[in-house]
Amino acid sequence: MPRIVMKFGGTSMAGSERIRHVAGLVKREAERGNEVAVVVSAMAGETDRLIQFCREAASVYDPREYDVVVASGEQVTSGLLAITLQGMGLNAKSYMGWQLPIRASGHAAGLIEGIDAEVLEGVFRQSGIAVIPGFQGVTDRGDLATLGRGGSDTSAVALAAAMKADRCDIYTDVDGVYTTDPRIVPRARKLDRVTYEEMLELASVGAKVLQTRSVGLAMRYNMPLQVLSSFEDLPGTMIVGDDSIEDRNMERNVITGIAHDQNEAMVTLTGLADEPGTLARIFAPLAAANINVDMIVQSAHESGDGRVLTFTVPTASLAHAVAALEQAKEEIGFDEIRTNTDVVKVSAVGVGMRSNAGIAAKMFETLGARGINIIAITTSEIKVSVLIHEDYTELAVRVLHTAFGLDQD
Amino acid sequence: MPRIVMKFGGTSMAGSERIRHVAGLVKREAERGNEVAVVVSAMAGETDRLIQFCREAASVYDPREYDVVVASGEQVTSGLLAITLQGMGLNAKSYMGWQLPIRASGHAAGLIEGIDAEVLEGVFRQSGIAVIPGFQGVTDRGDLATLGRGGSDTSAVALAAAMKADRCDIYTDVDGVYTTDPRIVPRARKLDRVTYEEMLELASVGAKVLQTRSVGLAMRYNMPLQVLSSFEDLPGTMIVGDDSIEDRNMERNVITGIAHDQNEAMVTLTGLADEPGTLARIFAPLAAANINVDMIVQSAHESGDGRVLTFTVPTASLAHAVAALEQAKEEIGFDEIRTNTDVVKVSAVGVGMRSNAGIAAKMFETLGARGINIIAITTSEIKVSVLIHEDYTELAVRVLHTAFGLDQD
Repeated sequence: MPRIVMKFGGTSMAGSERIRHVAGLVKREAERGNEVAVVVSAMAGETDRLIQFCREAASVYDPREYDVVVASGEQVTSGLLAITLQGMGLNAKSYMGWQLPIRASGHAAGLIEGIDAEVLEGVFRQSGIAVIPGFQGVTDRGDLATLGRGGSDTSAVALAAAMKADRCDIYTDVDGVYTTDPRIVPRARKLDRVTYEEMLELASVGAKVLQTRSVGLAMRYNMPLQVLSSFEDLPGTMIVGDDSIEDRNMERNVITGIAHDQNEAMVTLTGLADEPGTLARIFAPLAAANINVDMIVQSAHESGDGRVLTFTVPTASLAHAVAALEQAKEEIGFDEIRTNTDVVKVSAVGVGMRSNAGIAAKMFETLGARGINIIAITTSEIKVSVLIHEDYTELAVRVLHTAFGLDQD
Repeated sequence: MPRIVMKFGGTSMAGSERIRHVAGLVKREAERGNEVAVVVSAMAGETDRLIQFCREAASVYDPREYDVVVASGEQVTSGLLAITLQGMGLNAKSYMGWQLPIRASGHAAGLIEGIDAEVLEGVFRQSGIAVIPGFQGVTDRGDLATLGRGGSDTSAVALAAAMKADRCDIYTDVDGVYTTDPRIVPRARKLDRVTYEEMLELASVGAKVLQTRSVGLAMRYNMPLQVLSSFEDLPGTMIVGDDSIEDRNMERNVITGIAHDQNEAMVTLTGLADEPGTLARIFAPLAAANINVDMIVQSAHESGDGRVLTFTVPTASLAHAVAALEQAKEEIGFDEIRTNTDVVKVSAVGVGMRSNAGIAAKMFETLGARGINIIAITTSEIKVSVLIHEDYTELAVRVLHTAFGLDQD
C-alpha cells in the first residue's frame, strides 16, 4: 500500500475552517488507498505569539523552557486535526514528539537524531491516520525540544524517511516552485520538477518555499518531495533526485530559475596591509563568531584607501561581524569599516549549467546592457550569483529571466 | 525546611505582567526558606478558547485528543513562569504532568491516581523551584489527560500530599472565604479559618472559591489549605481539620456562612398513583441517566392534581431529566411534568450546628417574618438548605446573615 506523509503549514492550519479543509485533503489521500501520516504546523501567528511571551518573561530565556512554551502551538493543531478527521469518520490519532518518540539533539533549533516509526506501523495496521506535531521532539533527558523555525518541513521529511514513505507532500500557501518570483515576473512558470540541488540553491538564495534543511534531508534519503497548495486543487512541483529527471540534456533550459536574496550586507575594510596572512587575520575572528561570509572581493589599490577588501554577510549578522572586526582591529590592521545593506544577490540556478561555463558571461552581458553594475560574483556547480545595488532587483530578475529563456509563452 | 505548594489561577497568570507578579510572590516564599513547588493554571480565557476550537472541530470529540489540545494552556504558563523566575536569579524548572509523572485515571475529567514526587526531591536538593502545569496528568497508556475544569486546585492539593508539604496556598482573585457573598452583604466578614467540611458545603452551594474535589482531597490528607489573593498582600482564609480549630464551642456563631446557589431547577410530576413503588419508578430512570436529585417534596393531594411530587435537579441536567421521565411516562404513570428554574437554594453552613437542631426553625422563622415562602428544605450534619423563589435571593441572604450574627461590627 502506498505510504505518504502530508505536511501542512501555519496558514493551512489557521482556524477551524481551514483545518476542516485540510482534513478533507487528508481524507482524499486515505480514500485513494494511501497509508497517511500528517505533520502539522501551529496556527499562523501562534508561534510568534508564544515567542513574544518568552521575550517578555526574561531577556535571556532558558531554551528548555522556551521549548515547553513554543511546542504547545503544534500540540494544539495536531489534536484539533485528529478530532476533525474523526468527525469525518476516519480513524485518526495524534502522537506527540515525546510519544513516538522523535529524538532531538538538543533544545531550540535542535536536530532530529532519529524517529522510532514502530508506533506508526501499528497505526497503519489498524487503517489509522497518524497526526504528528511538526517542529518538535524529545531530548535524551526526556525534555521537550523544538527544531527551530520552519522545522516542521524537516519533521515531515525525517518522518517520511523513517517510515519509508513513497512521497512527502508539503502543502503550503503557494502552489509550487516557480522559475522566479511571480510577483516580479508575471510570466514566471511553475516548474513540474526540480532537483534537490537546484531547490537547495533556490532556497538558499531567497525562494522561501521550503526550509533548506528539509531539502538537504530529502536529498540524503532520496525522498521525493512535492510542494503544492492547500488552497487550490492543482498539481505542485516535484523535488527529486537528478537521475529521476529524464532527458535533462534534451531540455532547452540550462537554467531552472532566477532567485534573489535581499538578506545580504556588504562589509568593506580599507587601508589593509599588503602582506601575506592579512586575509586569515580578517576571517579568523568572523569564523570564531560563527558568521558566514559569502562573497569576497579583493580589490586592487583604490586611490587613497590602500588595499581594500569587500565581503558579504547575512544582514542579521552584520552588527556581530562589525563588532568582531573592531575588537580585532589592531591585530588585523585596517583604517576603517564601511557597511552597506543596499545590495541584493541575484542568482541563476540550474543543474544544466554543470557543463556550461558561459552562464556567468551571459549574466555580465545581460546586466551590463542595462547599465547594472556587478559588485561581486560567486559561482557553485549549479549556481551563478551576482551582487548588485538593490534598486535594480526587479529589473535584473526580469532581464535574466528572459535572457535564459524562462518566460512563459 | 518547610515545604509548600503555591497554586495560581488563570487571572493570576493572564499575561507577562501578572506572571512577573506571581514570580515575585514565589521568590518571597523561597527567600523565606521554603521549598516551593508551584502549580499554575492556563491564562484566563485560554482554556475556553481551546475548548471552543475542539467544539468547532467536531460535534462529538475524542477525549484523548481534547486533552492534547486543552493541556497546552498550562504547558505555556508553566514554561513562562520558569523563565520569569530564572530571570529573577532563581533556579526554576518546569515539569509536565507526563514527566513527573502525575498519573491520571483517564481522559477529560480524569482523577489523579498518584504522583511520583521523587523528581521533586531531586529539585529541592538543588534548591530548585518546580513549576508544574495544573489540570493534567498522563494515563497508564502514556497519553496526555486533563482533570476537568478547575482541576488545577486538585493538582495542587494532590501534589502537596505527595510531597508531604506543610501547606498548600491557593492564590486566586478573591482574598479569602467570606461569611457570604460580599456583593450581596457588604458587611460580610472574611473568615480566618473554616473546616474542610464547611468549605465543602459552602463550595457545593455556590461559594466558587475552591473546587469541591480539591477540598475533599485536602480533607482526606489533612493538608492545610490557604485561600489568598495574588493581587493584595493580605492574609487569607485557612481551611483546616475540625480539630485544628480551637475553642470552636466557645465561639458565638454556630453558623459559619450563608451561601446561595441559583443552579437548581424544580421538577413537578402530577397525577401520580398513590401506591407503593411509585417513587422508585420515578427515580430509577433519573439514576440511570446519572442525574443528581437534590431536594424532594412529596405533597399531599392537591386539588385536581392527584398525588404530586416535586424535586430539584441541577439546571444543566433539567432537559435530560425531563427527557428521561417522558420516556418512562407509561411505566411511572403521571399526568404531566412541570418545570421551574426561577428558584434558588439558600444554605446556612456551620460545624457548630451539629448539636443544634434549632437552625431550621430559626431559618423558617426569619424568612417567614419577611413573607418568604419556603418551597423545600434539606439538612445535612452541618448545613440547612431552603428552596425559595429567586426574587428573594438577596433579601433572604441578608436577613439570615444578620439573624445568625454574622454581620461585621
